[in-house]
Amino acid sequence: MYRSHNCGELRATHINTEVTLSGWVQKSRDKGFIVWVDLRDRYGITQLVFDEERTSKNMMEQAQNLGREFVIQVEGTVIERASKNPNIKTGEIEILVSKLTVLNEALLPPFTIEDKTDGGEDIRMKYRYLDIRRNPVKNSLIFRSKVSQEVRNYLSKQDFIEVETPYLIKSTPEGARDFVVPSRMNEGQFYALPQSPQTFKQLLMVGGMDKYFQIVKCFRDEDLRADRQPEFTQIDCEMAFVEQEDILNIFEGLTRHLLKEVNGVEVDKFPRMLFDDAMRLYGNDKPDIRFGMEFGELNEVTQHKDFAVFNNAELVVGIAVPGGNSYTRKEIDKLINWVKRPQVGALGMIYSRCNDDGSFKSSVDKFYDQDDLAKWAKITGAKPGDLVCVLSGDKNKVRAQLSALRMELAERLGLRDPKVFAPLWVIDFPLLELDEETGHYHAMHHPFTSPKPGQLKLLDTNPGEVKANAYDLVLNGNEIGGGSIRIHDKETQAIMFKHLGFTEEEAKAQFGFLMDAFQYGAPPHGGLAFGLDRLVAILGGQETIRDFIAFPKNNSGRDVMIDAPAAIDEEQLNDLSLKLNLKS
Amino acid sequence: MYRSHNCGELRATHINTEVTLSGWVQKSRDKGFIVWVDLRDRYGITQLVFDEERTSKNMMEQAQNLGREFVIQVEGTVIERASKNPNIKTGEIEILVSKLTVLNEALLPPFTIEDKTDGGEDIRMKYRYLDIRRNPVKNSLIFRSKVSQEVRNYLSKQDFIEVETPYLIKSTPEGARDFVVPSRMNEGQFYALPQSPQTFKQLLMVGGMDKYFQIVKCFRDEDLRADRQPEFTQIDCEMAFVEQEDILNIFEGLTRHLLKEVNGVEVDKFPRMLFDDAMRLYGNDKPDIRFGMEFGELNEVTQHKDFAVFNNAELVVGIAVPGGNSYTRKEIDKLINWVKRPQVGALGMIYSRCNDDGSFKSSVDKFYDQDDLAKWAKITGAKPGDLVCVLSGDKNKVRAQLSALRMELAERLGLRDPKVFAPLWVIDFPLLELDEETGHYHAMHHPFTSPKPGQLKLLDTNPGEVKANAYDLVLNGNEIGGGSIRIHDKETQAIMFKHLGFTEEEAKAQFGFLMDAFQYGAPPHGGLAFGLDRLVAILGGQETIRDFIAFPKNNSGRDVMIDAPAAIDEEQLNDLSLKLNLKS
Repeated sequence: MYRSHNCGELRATHINTEVTLSGWVQKSRDKGFIVWVDLRDRYGITQLVFDEERTSKNMMEQAQNLGREFVIQVEGTVIERASKNPNIKTGEIEILVSKLTVLNEALLPPFTIEDKTDGGEDIRMKYRYLDIRRNPVKNSLIFRSKVSQEVRNYLSKQDFIEVETPYLIKSTPEGARDFVVPSRMNEGQFYALPQSPQTFKQLLMVGGMDKYFQIVKCFRDEDLRADRQPEFTQIDCEMAFVEQEDILNIFEGLTRHLLKEVNGVEVDKFPRMLFDDAMRLYGNDKPDIRFGMEFGELNEVTQHKDFAVFNNAELVVGIAVPGGNSYTRKEIDKLINWVKRPQVGALGMIYSRCNDDGSFKSSVDKFYDQDDLAKWAKITGAKPGDLVCVLSGDKNKVRAQLSALRMELAERLGLRDPKVFAPLWVIDFPLLELDEETGHYHAMHHPFTSPKPGQLKLLDTNPGEVKANAYDLVLNGNEIGGGSIRIHDKETQAIMFKHLGFTEEEAKAQFGFLMDAFQYGAPPHGGLAFGLDRLVAILGGQETIRDFIAFPKNNSGRDVMIDAPAAIDEEQLNDLSLKLNLKS
Repeated sequence: MYRSHNCGELRATHINTEVTLSGWVQKSRDKGFIVWVDLRDRYGITQLVFDEERTSKNMMEQAQNLGREFVIQVEGTVIERASKNPNIKTGEIEILVSKLTVLNEALLPPFTIEDKTDGGEDIRMKYRYLDIRRNPVKNSLIFRSKVSQEVRNYLSKQDFIEVETPYLIKSTPEGARDFVVPSRMNEGQFYALPQSPQTFKQLLMVGGMDKYFQIVKCFRDEDLRADRQPEFTQIDCEMAFVEQEDILNIFEGLTRHLLKEVNGVEVDKFPRMLFDDAMRLYGNDKPDIRFGMEFGELNEVTQHKDFAVFNNAELVVGIAVPGGNSYTRKEIDKLINWVKRPQVGALGMIYSRCNDDGSFKSSVDKFYDQDDLAKWAKITGAKPGDLVCVLSGDKNKVRAQLSALRMELAERLGLRDPKVFAPLWVIDFPLLELDEETGHYHAMHHPFTSPKPGQLKLLDTNPGEVKANAYDLVLNGNEIGGGSIRIHDKETQAIMFKHLGFTEEEAKAQFGFLMDAFQYGAPPHGGLAFGLDRLVAILGGQETIRDFIAFPKNNSGRDVMIDAPAAIDEEQLNDLSLKLNLKS
């Protein structure tokens, strides 16, 4: 062992102990007659001291020549520091070095290895191994490991079995694009990498493994939006002989366990909200309920006047911005421009100032009187000093727009405190979703999701109204998990496939082995999957996942550190019976 | 919840309790006036009873019509059994059913769901979800989950951080074939699936994450030998600031922890054996030391007579077979034929019977007298009643042949008790291995393995003699783990690359990013990886890994259940800028 202690553990109680430490030179201060070196490892920083009086000339010189990020080993005595540093755990002591060994030299790093680095995203990704030395990244990875371990501890105690499902599976034409893997031994054939272990976990239920989980990599060949990765990690779970209530309870328990063990936060029973209510009150199926600003629907109190914009709208809806009456006209104009950005897409915004004296001043005073505006305030919950912001238009669009505005304003108002955790179940998702391009309905979750009892018949008359036994777990405005109770009987499954537009043959071709399995005694079952990357980021108080992934890819799906993907040689292609067919 | 209890937990103490159970119909016995049903779930079997006196006619009929593997739910009362079954945990009770619900019917399964099934390997693989219902498979998967969890518990307590490394990486022309993944977003380029996270774990060490582990899938596109899988699982570990001794201690601790927690076996400090000794004494770098039968080298006591076969041999070597003198001439002839099989490849076998009276009778009495044969017995450790078996020829070949014979005989003699665990470190592996085809040396482990201190110079004069800081962990004749201390300074690395025949440019092209990383302060480091599939199988007392993998592939790399790999459609190929280039 190259060390007797790590760089984070020595305290005043160790004074006069002989120790051996190893680590990286964080920085050194050379006063000529005395040299201090901050020695860093995963566990912290310990100060080394060399001085003319007590250090040999040779070693003094050696110390003076240590560069940043040199790897060194020192032997020495723990002594009390003259001037203590209360900001670090080892701040009461330093090491008077008696032996110094340079284990490895280092080039000057391309960015500073400090919490606040001078390195931009690109250079940090290229030298990710140096970036990982920085506390923000290092601690995120350690945090992730702890979360994963706590997930396993909790589920194992609940009798869940972690089963590894295969990575080399079969491509299905469903949903997002699969990554495929050519098979050399089976010429012209391909494996696919799993988008999720969905079918395998259902097969495990058929196999009687009634409480399954797995922390598992999944793959999706999508055009990457910001903060998406082609490979991502799921906490994948499934249970048999359960109803929705059982699943909500188990995974609420898991989430509460995590909040307690990794964040030290105790949370009450999670509220539950119907999907329809979430859309109505927050314009969003993953509402952030750390703050209010609930939507107030204003059709009834706006469509009785001559204001055509509102009168022609499917939905008129507003929110109260706390303290928003203090915004200047210019600030409000900026806000209006913000909602008109193409990313949000509103055509405009109407507002009404709620003055401290109880009066109102709106941008549509021409059409609405004080009584009208008082109703707006009442419905949106606005108090004197607030600002009511109103959008109107097509219901789905305007809800999404107002939701974006709500989140933006909350961010500006500091209402999205990363230390506060507000989990929420959103339940009763629609079973089907209308594809506006094709006019066809497709499964919102997947074709094995079960409809609510008694709603099967609605499929014929009003398919968009059918609700599913499907649920999402939302934390601070992010979907961290989602799942459903599955269909387990052939009759319902056949009806579902019919309504999704599959012929019997098509259903068999795509889901044959699962449908076969369902004939041999499938138990009632359901499950849930958490997105681990996002869960960890949110528990860690952040919204971007990249620093919680050791070696992430960029938005083109590239790993710039190892320079992948890359060309492969002709021989390898030949072995796989493939030829390039480049378009460009 | 579809049940109040599971099928393995009810005992006499529950008598008179009202319970709800769910599960599969294992079998039923219909005596007309009484029907017993064995209800099975993951946890066990509970007997249900329906009888004319206490069961309605309707339900009686329903019970009589239950088929094997129907999924049912019952409500009823726990009652004492008339005739108890001491073989199952619930054997004191049965359930008098008051309500029976068929949750799902089942087709007759294609093989019996019993511990000893009538299903062959192929059909079991096709219907793996039914196979998993059988105890031998189910328990193996549960066992695997427990082993993984204990690995994580142990390493987490030792401050190891589990870091997920990427699956979509870069293809390297080294070693076994990579599986590749075409990138749609980067035309003409490919990712590779990792054969191991080797370079990433070394980068994590450079990144200061000084105790890393990961339970991770790895991929190798090999022509499959029996009991190999194209995807397999490793417990991958690496540590910084350690020497070989530290690594052996940590992972010996892990292995001892597993033996204790999952097998209830306490094991002494693991013996260590030099690679050279393992080859000399067992002809094998992974000796099974549950039994003796060590090799005795007989050159000195055989090459002084006129027996040309021995005189011309590089090595004459024998083992004593305990009680082998009882073999008939015919049995010995069979043994001789066994070693002459192409899989073993010996040209013949000489033997010497050790009679109870202390005399010897050999197959080469023409050449050797009793004094000679007494020396053979002494050197191989043969006692009266034993049989000395002697092979001769080229050293490496004959050792492998005698090792095969030793294992075969031990198997026949029942010396390979799966309940006995004999772990062993084999250390000081050679650094290089001669490729007999090309005459070149290549790295036995990988090019980053460090040579023993002071042996670098030997590379010039006698490269085959250089030993490495490389070690294997062997359990019951199987390599369950292996690793090395890595090179961490550029000078040694440059010397290594030169001796492995790399130009500077080639080294840079293949290992550039790792070599770059090593310039920025690489700490001394080393590690080890366990093969989880095999580890679990051996701890589970078996030598084949297939039943410890939920959904294994066959020897052609196919998953016959989901029928993968499979053709993909033209459009998908087009998206990937690929064309098939079939040879057949």
